[in-house]
Amino acid sequence: MLPAPHFSAFNPPRRILMGPGPSDVYPEVLAAQARPTVGHLDPLFVGMMDELKSLIQYAFQTKNEMTMAVSAPGSAGMETCFVNLVEPGEKVIVCRNGVFGERMRQNVERVGAIAVVVDNEWGTPVDPAAVEAALKANPDAKFLAFVHAETSTGALSDAKTLCALVKQYGCLSIVDAVTSLGGVELRVDEWGIDAIYSGSQKCLSCVPGLSPVSFSPAAVEKLKNRKTPVQSWFLDQSLVMAYWTSAGGKRSYHHTAPVNALYALHESLRLLAEEGLENAWKRHQDMHLVLRAGLEKLGLKFVVAEASRLPQLNAIYIPEGVDDAAVRARLLKDYNLEIGAGLGALAGKAWRIGLMGFGARRENVALCLRALEEVLN
Amino acid sequence: MLPAPHFSAFNPPRRILMGPGPSDVYPEVLAAQARPTVGHLDPLFVGMMDELKSLIQYAFQTKNEMTMAVSAPGSAGMETCFVNLVEPGEKVIVCRNGVFGERMRQNVERVGAIAVVVDNEWGTPVDPAAVEAALKANPDAKFLAFVHAETSTGALSDAKTLCALVKQYGCLSIVDAVTSLGGVELRVDEWGIDAIYSGSQKCLSCVPGLSPVSFSPAAVEKLKNRKTPVQSWFLDQSLVMAYWTSAGGKRSYHHTAPVNALYALHESLRLLAEEGLENAWKRHQDMHLVLRAGLEKLGLKFVVAEASRLPQLNAIYIPEGVDDAAVRARLLKDYNLEIGAGLGALAGKAWRIGLMGFGARRENVALCLRALEEVLN
Repeated sequence: MLPAPHFSAFNPPRRILMGPGPSDVYPEVLAAQARPTVGHLDPLFVGMMDELKSLIQYAFQTKNEMTMAVSAPGSAGMETCFVNLVEPGEKVIVCRNGVFGERMRQNVERVGAIAVVVDNEWGTPVDPAAVEAALKANPDAKFLAFVHAETSTGALSDAKTLCALVKQYGCLSIVDAVTSLGGVELRVDEWGIDAIYSGSQKCLSCVPGLSPVSFSPAAVEKLKNRKTPVQSWFLDQSLVMAYWTSAGGKRSYHHTAPVNALYALHESLRLLAEEGLENAWKRHQDMHLVLRAGLEKLGLKFVVAEASRLPQLNAIYIPEGVDDAAVRARLLKDYNLEIGAGLGALAGKAWRIGLMGFGARRENVALCLRALEEVLN
Repeated sequence: MLPAPHFSAFNPPRRILMGPGPSDVYPEVLAAQARPTVGHLDPLFVGMMDELKSLIQYAFQTKNEMTMAVSAPGSAGMETCFVNLVEPGEKVIVCRNGVFGERMRQNVERVGAIAVVVDNEWGTPVDPAAVEAALKANPDAKFLAFVHAETSTGALSDAKTLCALVKQYGCLSIVDAVTSLGGVELRVDEWGIDAIYSGSQKCLSCVPGLSPVSFSPAAVEKLKNRKTPVQSWFLDQSLVMAYWTSAGGKRSYHHTAPVNALYALHESLRLLAEEGLENAWKRHQDMHLVLRAGLEKLGLKFVVAEASRLPQLNAIYIPEGVDDAAVRARLLKDYNLEIGAGLGALAGKAWRIGLMGFGARRENVALCLRALEEVLN
């Protein structure tokens, strides 16, 4: 026998999470998650899933029947959209203005489809004119894929305008709402979004590990008319939905649902519904304005121009001569405060300060500003 | 705006989980999971991941470097093995003696590979002679895939003998250990298993949602020499391992890890290491013998012959004239006791009584026997 290792129980400190996610989790969510595990086909659990579905629909502002939570993180939500909807050889216009647009491109290639990339500079939003030009130049394109809120840069793109273009050119839209859901205006039905995914660990302030996803009737139609099987068994929505839909009160087993994580998502979305989406959007904006004023007083400069700045993700340039890693390490060690490093092209050049969900509150902003001031001076 | 739904917090009852999983979760695991969320790149969290990796290695009895937990349930662990190792056009011998062997076959087809199926009757183990015949008849086969402990029937297959055959014929083995890990003898290195996956919610008594996975050096070599990209971005081990391996104390972001679920897995494996694997195996067997004696006294008959019966999953035939659903509903309603329905070919014909992990203890066995006696009489 290989010997047993002996470790103590892991007792993490109470951090203040102001990076790009995971965000500060609601205490109620942590408590919900610790409730006793029940079976994934228990009638009481199935009842909770029905509530959860309508809570996800509310957060997305959609009546889409095919709305559920993928039993894995946002990256798996992204993959769910691509593997279910896009078939090999099809053309997808992919907007790339940060890390996650590039990840979308890789997803397109891994399903054997053709990616036509529309590049926009990091830190800028997707340019609707460039998208329209691509749609015009590629009449055989079937999809437009873009990131609503780029977590790597803090830029917000105009999803409403982009989705209107998509409709005009007869395509379907695939939208990354990982960082936008719950933090800024997002209206799936009104804007005509066809496939959308998010993550539990950003503005929903749930624990990381789940990805809310919704498909419009047109997307469902596309899925139904596939000529090739979905390449992933685990993410095949036509199988998964037999579990997520009560047919005469009965659900079919597909995989064992992450029961306790779903308790957590139910609780976080319940708190969002109690606050009201529009109040949550306003709170994120209000806290952003307080943070912005303080950061500017410290002489820090934003990566993204004001018009397309995400309130929930504030990317700021690291001042010249300042040691990136040392500052973040001090914030973590002395203040239990986590802010995010730069990612991709912004690695070593920017910090990302998150104001997400339960994290978007006055005491977090005050702590962050004061700690930054102390550490930078 | 679509209106906000208003629901109460979900307060599940304390069930006694004696189905095919999720099993009774250790109270310590629920408590661990409720600890404060920290960042997935926090140095303290990364330290916990190093411990977690060695705990998974211990549970599997392996020194494999490529050992980690997939951030999704066991079905995704299964898919991880197939999409990383098997390339389109390759031949895989798949043993099918229940639901999960059939799921393996579907995975093989979805990667565009060729499945050669070796069928054994439901409730019987995989027959090594049939496997050897298939290996002989298919010298171009690259893999043998089989389920160590069939959750749908309760049959244990002889993994040691099967893996020796695999080696003899120059193939690689892919082994489903979802229900076996922690419940019966399993020695990855000694038996020469190449790729193995399990689930958190069976004999580990953790919350559902994670899948421990391990690849042997030969499997890693196969992955490195692929001619085609792995079709899943999310499950691509060459990307995932950059996060699960500390290179000079640094890890690269791949996806946001399910932080709290990993706390839970760390705690459940820590408890397993404290008990000791061999003690845990013995406890499962001991409790099975007590349960068996009681079930036989009630006149209930096992689906699986004694020699290949899993201690942790007891499939018994439903006595004639007994209403399957009504009995399970009464056990759940009156005793808070969950036992499992039959699955696939055994639906409506058998019950599955789980004695898994923390669930394999005297009080559970006593309750189950007494409740069955009361409900059946």
